[in-house]
Parts: sequence; C-alpha cells; structure tokens
Amino acid sequence: MQHINSSQLQVMSNRYRAQLVNSLSGFKSANLIGTIDNQQQTNLAIFSSVAHLGSSPALLGFIMRPDSVERHTLENIKATKQYTINQVNQQIWQSAHQTSARYLKNECEFEKTGLTTEFIEGVGAPFVKESQLKYLLTLQEIVPIKANNTSFVIGEITDILCQQSAIKKDGYIDIESLNTVALSGLDSYHTTQRLSRLSYAKTETAAKAISIDGNGSE
Amino acid sequence: MQHINSSQLQVMSNRYRAQLVNSLSGFKSANLIGTIDNQQQTNLAIFSSVAHLGSSPALLGFIMRPDSVERHTLENIKATKQYTINQVNQQIWQSAHQTSARYLKNECEFEKTGLTTEFIEGVGAPFVKESQLKYLLTLQEIVPIKANNTSFVIGEITDILCQQSAIKKDGYIDIESLNTVALSGLDSYHTTQRLSRLSYAKTETAAKAISIDGNGSE
Repeated sequence: MQHINSSQLQVMSNRYRAQLVNSLSGFKSANLIGTIDNQQQTNLAIFSSVAHLGSSPALLGFIMRPDSVERHTLENIKATKQYTINQVNQQIWQSAHQTSARYLKNECEFEKTGLTTEFIEGVGAPFVKESQLKYLLTLQEIVPIKANNTSFVIGEITDILCQQSAIKKDGYIDIESLNTVALSGLDSYHTTQRLSRLSYAKTETAAKAISIDGNGSE
Repeated sequence: MQHINSSQLQVMSNRYRAQLVNSLSGFKSANLIGTIDNQQQTNLAIFSSVAHLGSSPALLGFIMRPDSVERHTLENIKATKQYTINQVNQQIWQSAHQTSARYLKNECEFEKTGLTTEFIEGVGAPFVKESQLKYLLTLQEIVPIKANNTSFVIGEITDILCQQSAIKKDGYIDIESLNTVALSGLDSYHTTQRLSRLSYAKTETAAKAISIDGNGSE
C-alpha cells in the first residue's frame, strides 16, 4: 500500500493531482445535460457529478465548477429554469466526451459531435435522441459551496423518457440493459456486468441476492 | 419509449418511486465511510453519493439524508471532524451492503458484517482493511439543502492509501484493477470493463483513445 500524505498532495503537479483526486470517489455517472438559451441556441455538456438527492419530491443535484467550459449550461439554466439529463451509453460515449471541448457559445455541441436533438411538446430544452434514459428537470436551487467556489445545482424531475423494457416491476431501471456507461477519473469509460441486486439489509439476517425484477426481496 | 409525467410520478407508491428515481442518475460510486465517536465506538456505513468537488484543494462531498440510518456517521463526523472513505470492491460488496441495516449505536458494523478495522498512527477514524483504495478526510463544511432537508457534507483529503500498482504514471488510478464496484438504483452492484481512456477533448480534433498510462494524450 502506498501512503500519500498531505504534503505530497500539495507538491504534485496540478495535472497529476487532478487525475489522482478525480479517481478517488469511485465510479461516476456519465450524463449529458441539455439546455437552450433565450435565442434558441442549444447547448450540451457532459457531467460526471449528477447525484440522487431524494425521490419524493424527485430531486437530483450536480456540481458546477466556476471556471468550467460548461458554464453555458448554468447560464441557460438560470435563464430558462429547465434542463434535460441524458444517460450516456455505449453508442455515444465518444461523442459525449467530445462535448467537453471548449466550443464557443454560438457553436452547437449537437452538430459538432454528431448527436441528435429531440424535443417534447412545450419544452425548449433539448433531449439527446440517442440516449435511452433521459428526463426533464426544473431548477429548484443553486447552492454555493464556499470551500472552493463551486455550485451545487438542484432540480426537480418532471418528465422521464425511458425504454419501457428496462423498467422492472418494482420500479428499478436496468440501466445495464440500456448500455449506460460509467466513468472513472477524468477520461476513462466503462461498461458494466451485474453481480446481483441484494435484498434490503436487516440486522437479523444477511442480505441475499434477489432477481433483477426484485423477486425475493421479502 | 415510455413517457412518465409529473402526475404519474406523484401517484406512484413510495417504494416504486424510490427504485425508479434512484436509477436515474446512472452508475454510482459505492463507498464505506468509517468514523469513531468520543467513546471509541467505531461506525461504518455505505454511501452511494460521494462526489468529486475539486482537486486543489482535494475536496469531496457526500449527501446525508435526515432520516438516514447512517446518521451515526454524521454525529461522529461532527464530534471528531475526521472520517475515512473506503472504495467497495468485489471481495466485500455484500458486507458493504449489509452495513445499511439499522444497527444500534452501540453495535459495531465491522463486527456485524465481517469487515476489519485498520488504523494509521494518530488517527481515530477506522479504515476498512479489505479496501484497496481509501483515504482520510477532515470536515470542511456541512451545507444544508433546503429543497429536501438533506445535507451536503464536504471534506478535504489529507491521506491516501492505495495499492501502488494501480497508480498510473499520469496520476490516474486504475480502480477497475482494484475490482472497485459500481452501484445502480438502490441495491444493484456491478463490476466494470474498460472501453478506453480518451484524450482531452479539443475543438479542432476528435478525442482519441489513449493508453491506461495516459500515453497518446498529447
């Protein structure tokens, strides 16, 4: 086991430390956030920090860096209060990564990366047609993080679009069947293979494997 | 494509909605957070919401639910200002899941689930011996999330313990080689298979595959 202490962390090159520290949290979600501005210019950017906050109401948050290339995303969310989150899958992971290039405000990441816009009635924010699980959010709160000047952007989910076959009878969505990818570090993409679902853990007995449909959970 | 709207979301049973909404964010990290109280009672709990906040300083955050069984974790962090985060791997995923059972404050999750404490000099908070990548944090800030009464707990990383062979020459840690698992929904565990690392995305050229060591990135 290598032990890296605080002094060693501080003297690393910025690039090395960024790779190292970005690897610590474990596997991350890969999501494309779609927005539109008041001039109807669409924007799309990849985020690895989308996190579940609660299911009733259905809330998700993501981290926005102050110096980020994805700042167009935040400007658009502030202007329109709406955005889409689209799971990245094995068909589009390279295009999704490419959205992190520093395209200008008037350049469209959809066109530049070969992804396709998709719209639902009455909503300006674009979905990614190639994504098999995507949803619309309304901005709830932007929480400033004093520790490093980032923001935690919180939205409520209002509409979900998903391949019907992936939704199991207890509500679990088999995102592996949708070929959703996971991220590690800054730039590594991974497919997955299920070990198992496990039953709700109780103190008296060890949790056991349950079926993908949730059978065996009680 | 199934379209689930806001009204449908609201009338679902709580259990179904919890499974559904927990599946939306994509793959999640699986981490065990280790703490100790002022009476030297250790505590261990699994979290799926650990997220990268920044690398300089090295900051991570995680979501704490108000009604959570892991509330002992927050009490201990407030009391001692320190905690460990330990990546869950293929050897310990079932024990890790079992820590989510509602053990009493005076029951030790390490003992109950068969995991082993490991300590470093001068630090009270326990590491998980079986974890191949783990680190120590000092509490920086607890940010209240008004939208649903959760908290975003932010800490700075001071010490990292990692299998040396997994740290690549540009700082990237090959967490797949450590058999780190990913989570989906509330209870599904997954191993991974790397598609590739990709080069830093630039506007002029498409990002390309790079080696696991980062070769080919420039």
